[in-house]
Amino acid sequence: MGNPGRDPFGEAVRAVKPPTELAKLLGDAGAWGVNLHDNDLVPIDATPSERDKIVKDFKAACASAGLVVPMATVNLFTAPVFRDGAFTANDPAVRAYAVQKTMRAMDLGAELGAKIFVLWGGREGTETDACRKADDAVRRLREAIDFLCEYSLEQKYGFRFAMEAKPNEPRGDIYMATTGNYLGLIPTLAHPEMVGVNPEFAHETMAGLNFVHAVAQAWEAGKLFHIDLNDQVIGRYDQDFRFGSVNAKMAFFLVKFLEEVGYDGPRHFDAHAYRTENYEGVKDFAVGCMRSYLILKEKAARFAADKEIQGIVKELATASAASPGVGKFSGAGAKALLGHTFDRGVMAAKNLPYERLDQLTMEVIYGVR
Amino acid sequence: MGNPGRDPFGEAVRAVKPPTELAKLLGDAGAWGVNLHDNDLVPIDATPSERDKIVKDFKAACASAGLVVPMATVNLFTAPVFRDGAFTANDPAVRAYAVQKTMRAMDLGAELGAKIFVLWGGREGTETDACRKADDAVRRLREAIDFLCEYSLEQKYGFRFAMEAKPNEPRGDIYMATTGNYLGLIPTLAHPEMVGVNPEFAHETMAGLNFVHAVAQAWEAGKLFHIDLNDQVIGRYDQDFRFGSVNAKMAFFLVKFLEEVGYDGPRHFDAHAYRTENYEGVKDFAVGCMRSYLILKEKAARFAADKEIQGIVKELATASAASPGVGKFSGAGAKALLGHTFDRGVMAAKNLPYERLDQLTMEVIYGVR
Amino acid sequence: MGNPGRDPFGEAVRAVKPPTELAKLLGDAGAWGVNLHDNDLVPIDATPSERDKIVKDFKAACASAGLVVPMATVNLFTAPVFRDGAFTANDPAVRAYAVQKTMRAMDLGAELGAKIFVLWGGREGTETDACRKADDAVRRLREAIDFLCEYSLEQKYGFRFAMEAKPNEPRGDIYMATTGNYLGLIPTLAHPEMVGVNPEFAHETMAGLNFVHAVAQAWEAGKLFHIDLNDQVIGRYDQDFRFGSVNAKMAFFLVKFLEEVGYDGPRHFDAHAYRTENYEGVKDFAVGCMRSYLILKEKAARFAADKEIQGIVKELATASAASPGVGKFSGAGAKALLGHTFDRGVMAAKNLPYERLDQLTMEVIYGVR
Amino acid sequence: MGNPGRDPFGEAVRAVKPPTELAKLLGDAGAWGVNLHDNDLVPIDATPSERDKIVKDFKAACASAGLVVPMATVNLFTAPVFRDGAFTANDPAVRAYAVQKTMRAMDLGAELGAKIFVLWGGREGTETDACRKADDAVRRLREAIDFLCEYSLEQKYGFRFAMEAKPNEPRGDIYMATTGNYLGLIPTLAHPEMVGVNPEFAHETMAGLNFVHAVAQAWEAGKLFHIDLNDQVIGRYDQDFRFGSVNAKMAFFLVKFLEEVGYDGPRHFDAHAYRTENYEGVKDFAVGCMRSYLILKEKAARFAADKEIQGIVKELATASAASPGVGKFSGAGAKALLGHTFDRGVMAAKNLPYERLDQLTMEVIYGVR
Repeated sequence: MGNPGRDPFGEAVRAVKPPTELAKLLGDAGAWGVNLHDNDLVPIDATPSERDKIVKDFKAACASAGLVVPMATVNLFTAPVFRDGAFTANDPAVRAYAVQKTMRAMDLGAELGAKIFVLWGGREGTETDACRKADDAVRRLREAIDFLCEYSLEQKYGFRFAMEAKPNEPRGDIYMATTGNYLGLIPTLAHPEMVGVNPEFAHETMAGLNFVHAVAQAWEAGKLFHIDLNDQVIGRYDQDFRFGSVNAKMAFFLVKFLEEVGYDGPRHFDAHAYRTENYEGVKDFAVGCMRSYLILKEKAARFAADKEIQGIVKELATASAASPGVGKFSGAGAKALLGHTFDRGVMAAKNLPYERLDQLTMEVIYGVR
Repeated sequence: MGNPGRDPFGEAVRAVKPPTELAKLLGDAGAWGVNLHDNDLVPIDATPSERDKIVKDFKAACASAGLVVPMATVNLFTAPVFRDGAFTANDPAVRAYAVQKTMRAMDLGAELGAKIFVLWGGREGTETDACRKADDAVRRLREAIDFLCEYSLEQKYGFRFAMEAKPNEPRGDIYMATTGNYLGLIPTLAHPEMVGVNPEFAHETMAGLNFVHAVAQAWEAGKLFHIDLNDQVIGRYDQDFRFGSVNAKMAFFLVKFLEEVGYDGPRHFDAHAYRTENYEGVKDFAVGCMRSYLILKEKAARFAADKEIQGIVKELATASAASPGVGKFSGAGAKALLGHTFDRGVMAAKNLPYERLDQLTMEVIYGVR
Repeated sequence: MGNPGRDPFGEAVRAVKPPTELAKLLGDAGAWGVNLHDNDLVPIDATPSERDKIVKDFKAACASAGLVVPMATVNLFTAPVFRDGAFTANDPAVRAYAVQKTMRAMDLGAELGAKIFVLWGGREGTETDACRKADDAVRRLREAIDFLCEYSLEQKYGFRFAMEAKPNEPRGDIYMATTGNYLGLIPTLAHPEMVGVNPEFAHETMAGLNFVHAVAQAWEAGKLFHIDLNDQVIGRYDQDFRFGSVNAKMAFFLVKFLEEVGYDGPRHFDAHAYRTENYEGVKDFAVGCMRSYLILKEKAARFAADKEIQGIVKELATASAASPGVGKFSGAGAKALLGHTFDRGVMAAKNLPYERLDQLTMEVIYGVR
Repeated sequence: MGNPGRDPFGEAVRAVKPPTELAKLLGDAGAWGVNLHDNDLVPIDATPSERDKIVKDFKAACASAGLVVPMATVNLFTAPVFRDGAFTANDPAVRAYAVQKTMRAMDLGAELGAKIFVLWGGREGTETDACRKADDAVRRLREAIDFLCEYSLEQKYGFRFAMEAKPNEPRGDIYMATTGNYLGLIPTLAHPEMVGVNPEFAHETMAGLNFVHAVAQAWEAGKLFHIDLNDQVIGRYDQDFRFGSVNAKMAFFLVKFLEEVGYDGPRHFDAHAYRTENYEGVKDFAVGCMRSYLILKEKAARFAADKEIQGIVKELATASAASPGVGKFSGAGAKALLGHTFDRGVMAAKNLPYERLDQLTMEVIYGVR
């Protein structure tokens, strides 16, 4: 909401509004909560007393707008000091400062009531891999996360960390390019149970990956701690478009998945309005995000209630022929499996009406069914 | 070597050669080893005695060509029976058959002396996500891998499994799209210690990801069991070009990384010759792959020996200012860190001559330094 | 319809059907016409009498199925002889043969009543630009097209040629990568009036380009002779998915554009069914293409009838302030324009509710408006 | 040179320097010329007398640094007034203002001695195609260019206009996405002879297109009026990296092409230094661009002098078999061509050692040949 519409080729088009006013705008738009980077609220050079005043006013504004603060995060990318990264920077002083800044952002988040702490390492990357061995970056990242987990424990903040991947921009390449990379890193941490992921629709889509598959893997592993919803065209700059405004089909499958599995975390719309908009348009944008989610939720219910669709889905799961199962390994089971004669022709002849199923799905999305 | 040059728009341009002859060609080209899918050697419908004859002849051909078989794998994608996947197919009979076929491919691989077993799930994916819940696919994949690990243990084959990711093609989207996704899956398996990854240059590049970052994460996690070397333009069909022929810079950083960390597994060139070539050209292609690796290895040594380059790299690692370190968490350390005053201006002023460093690196690659 | 489902990693899954049977299938699916490459109908090695028999039978089948043949084309990509291109091949004999083959395909097309002749140069490209100067390729292409235009004139075939661009696959890079490139080539031909373009949804989308923008430019230049409708995910292998099944929004804007400007050429669905399908599924696929077009056509009408939408569109075209127009140049007009004082603040403050407009558009697409 | 290193996620890292100082820096780096947008030199709100003073000082600075100003251009993207485009904006007042601003930039360019005027329509595009019919955008663009051509003629400025394409960023989609689109537009203008293109390496590469193919088509059509050299990874935000620093092979083929055909326009490096750099690094960056061009020029000469390479290239152009040529159409020639019997087998058997040729090319690039 607070994005003034500056981009690499253009000046801001909207006046910056104070956080208290943005809270009101969000409340008017019907939002449930608000998230923020530390410096979205407290300027990087604020004195302690300035900080306390700002936090107090903001808490009051949230209360009056009926907003909660479910998640907090830290800005480790705007200031020039982070131009070569934060936790993975070559300069040890920068690495230490980044951890200190995050600790303070955790203090702030805890004060605002947040229980999820998102970490997006926007500057953790390279334009030239000559500058650092890529495995050193992994080790430095681990060191910082392990430290911050301990800090949360010591302070009894109860934070769960949600790691947010992005393949590139603003760095040429960002370490931990996809949600999968973080799922691979987490089990190597000192406190894997405290750390999950925050997949972002646009980030995974930038690399042309299927977002639902990434979310599903995270969910299945018990690691879907948070999610960032927006939209994006594949293979482009980070667009952060209104949720549901580009990839209608992927958005549909995503909402269907989240609703079916019972994901109960925040639906966080991490997007911003087109640069053509004034603040009226910013509200249109925010309302549009929420409305599109609900439209797609309704479509997911329709998909679940459609008899022809459900008939096909059910038939797909039936076996083409009797055979031993796979299941848990046993010597006897393996023997039985090896001994079975499969008729490839029969199995290959099974009816798989995916074109029909997909057309019906599209017709649900198009609202003509 | 055996690829006859067929593609989606064209017929084969080269006669298919028997494996024994291909082994000779590879030996002539100077290769150290040869890898194969089960059906590259043994036709899918061969009788047991045909199979034994073929294997015996092939082993003799390898011996005479001086080739080892370090890795084996299974073809779960060519036959129509796998048109909806293998381990993740909706049809339980297909899933069982896929496991059986893999067990037999493991028998074959063991007989040929392979110690690494690669699994590439080329058909494990979707064109429409209406057909299957994506988290079910993860569960089915895990079930199959767990079963196969146990089979290897029971048979005392000593296999280490190397999982190969690919974002798409031949399916619209393939599950486990990147190496990172497999690094995330492995810790959830019953025998994580037996399973690692087989990153492929072209597959990670298809999604526009930095291949060296993926390889480095796998290495740092102790999971780089195998590697597939080739080349590819970002955002395209699977090209499998000659190693070092497109992304000279990425190939350089990769070879530099592998040599520096002491990777001692096979350098497997999983590529194929242009469709313009006859078998003389196929040999040129194979020789080119190996020659380019050695050219880049020599360049990596030159980079390591270059005084100006090493001077910059060394300077990069120095601190811009004194500060507490991060390191292992302690209450006292956290307090010291929180209490320290960082001068962002001083840190942001540190000289980071990355343009110069990258230009020097390019000059090493261009061979003018 | 005739695609048997073979792909780079898999065998055919459907038996090949004779063209007469496919004509019947198409008729049953409700199609208006059928297009074909020369060798889809007549095998490349057919004798003249075999050819005549095949053509006669096919014409009868079309008549009985109620199908016309509005467009014909030539296959210059399947046979190994074209592995280095056809019109642009380095071998002069191949270039001559390609022209001869096209002349014969024109004879065939004319016999079947086609008035549009599509040229897709699937093999006109490179894996290595060392093999040919890229401007020579342009000259060779022009020579061939000029020759074929004259042949059509001499034979009084009345063909209009529609050039089809594609960025890559099956070649590493294909010359004339986008529809724009052909729009640039055509004015340099001897008979520009005879040559237009055949933009394909999937091909432009492979490069991540906005398909509607390309079609609009072609239309505005009077060059939209034909169009190929299908669907595709950006940055991938050529998928040729069912029309309307991936990029719902782009498909909507496309149909809206074609209907609004009154495009009266064929709506050619150049797609193929998923490899999971049997022939029942192939029919589902064909029906789905046509049905989705009609669904979107209905939505375009709804967009045009929506009062809030049309109100916004109308308001957008009004001027924020009085000013001289641009129009046709005159000394006086230029002077007036230079003399005018613009108030940038007033102009920048004009309300541009694009978020609202786009949300309303999406709601039309989602069928909830 | 003047880029302060601001990006969408970060503040400026370098102090802004006045144009006179940048001219000195460029001169020190060894540059031949300098180009600029109107507002790079003259602030958008400068009074006429301020403007004249600035221009006078800058001319003196250029003279003293030994720099020419071969090209000028206009900034139609930074100010909020252009948030919906300039020549194609929906607001007629904005369209008029954009033309007026360009006329003044032409006045400035003429005063500085420029003969090429580049037009990059950075904001001419959409996030939602609901806002404007895409063919209207083409008509508006033509109207503006036609007007500006007449203005140049009337003022006797002698400008040649060079149109610069870009697929996206900062707009979701930019009209005239590729160089090909402009080559298609130009012949529809009132003064096509005055208008050519300014292809940019990074822009064409963003869409994954072969830059050399685009440049070659422009050159062959006599339309290569200017060129922007830099580097870029496919499918990403606009990176504007140092020339020769990413796609070594494409850069090689480009330099080879420009040198072989005798392109004598400016080699304009339209790039900027990494955000990690101070002004010393900016100079390293500028020097690196020029040095890499010269390294590749030397390699092109080596390629031309290499006997094995040239032997292959020569052999490639020979015919596999005698045949009639294509050439200019005549009835007799067509008859002869139709009557000729081609032996596809012989033609398909011709040796095309492209793998060998490409490996030798790479070895020239790697500097080991």
